[in-house]
Amino acid sequence: MHSQTLKDTYAAYIACLNRQDWEALGDFVGDDVRYNGERVGLAGYRQMLERDFCAIPDLHFVIAQLIAEPPHIAARLTFDCTPTGELFEVPVNGRRVKFTENVFYTFEAGRIVDVASVIDKAAVAAQVLKP
Amino acid sequence: MHSQTLKDTYAAYIACLNRQDWEALGDFVGDDVRYNGERVGLAGYRQMLERDFCAIPDLHFVIAQLIAEPPHIAARLTFDCTPTGELFEVPVNGRRVKFTENVFYTFEAGRIVDVASVIDKAAVAAQVLKP
Repeated sequence: MHSQTLKDTYAAYIACLNRQDWEALGDFVGDDVRYNGERVGLAGYRQMLERDFCAIPDLHFVIAQLIAEPPHIAARLTFDCTPTGELFEVPVNGRRVKFTENVFYTFEAGRIVDVASVIDKAAVAAQVLKP
Repeated sequence: MHSQTLKDTYAAYIACLNRQDWEALGDFVGDDVRYNGERVGLAGYRQMLERDFCAIPDLHFVIAQLIAEPPHIAARLTFDCTPTGELFEVPVNGRRVKFTENVFYTFEAGRIVDVASVIDKAAVAAQVLKP
């Protein structure tokens, strides 16, 4: 897949997440998707995202940086949101927090089959516990 | 710069870090390098690395994944080490910990001018505080 095509596919995936269009998630994510080394599968991946939106009702994915070398994508995602209760074991309780995620994806046949993510959870703790 | 040339330059940069060859750091890192949005400069960047090796005498950078789209590189780095005292405000005290870093670099004229990193600090806390 061409680099720009892969980026377009990734942008469509992020748009799918942002409109919480879980019925379409399988268009972008493989049935046997792995997340940080664990096979979670499409159903487990969807559950993970649904839990994220439950904890963060105003969750919105913003692509700050995107680089592609097919079949791989790396994205720097930024979040600016108000989680209702606990997030990453930090009692955020509706405060506004900003954090980033740097994440690698591997695509096969146009769908994500592997995700290797690091979320800056420490930034959330720093903003809430040591503001 | 060609994608493979950029990867070779990056591998040489990581080798430079692993042998703590601070005199050569300027071959790979620009004078005005920025780290997570802050201009730290070459001297500040070197200090940061020297502090890392002081806290983690057996620090060794391993490239687990590397994707290039010139002038950008994204790397997933893995660490398996025994920090002597505190690391990321966690009292590791010589225990063995494993963690990852997902990091983006921007190159100009063959040198790194911008670094956007997320280190999985929460993984270290989880291994030490909740083993």
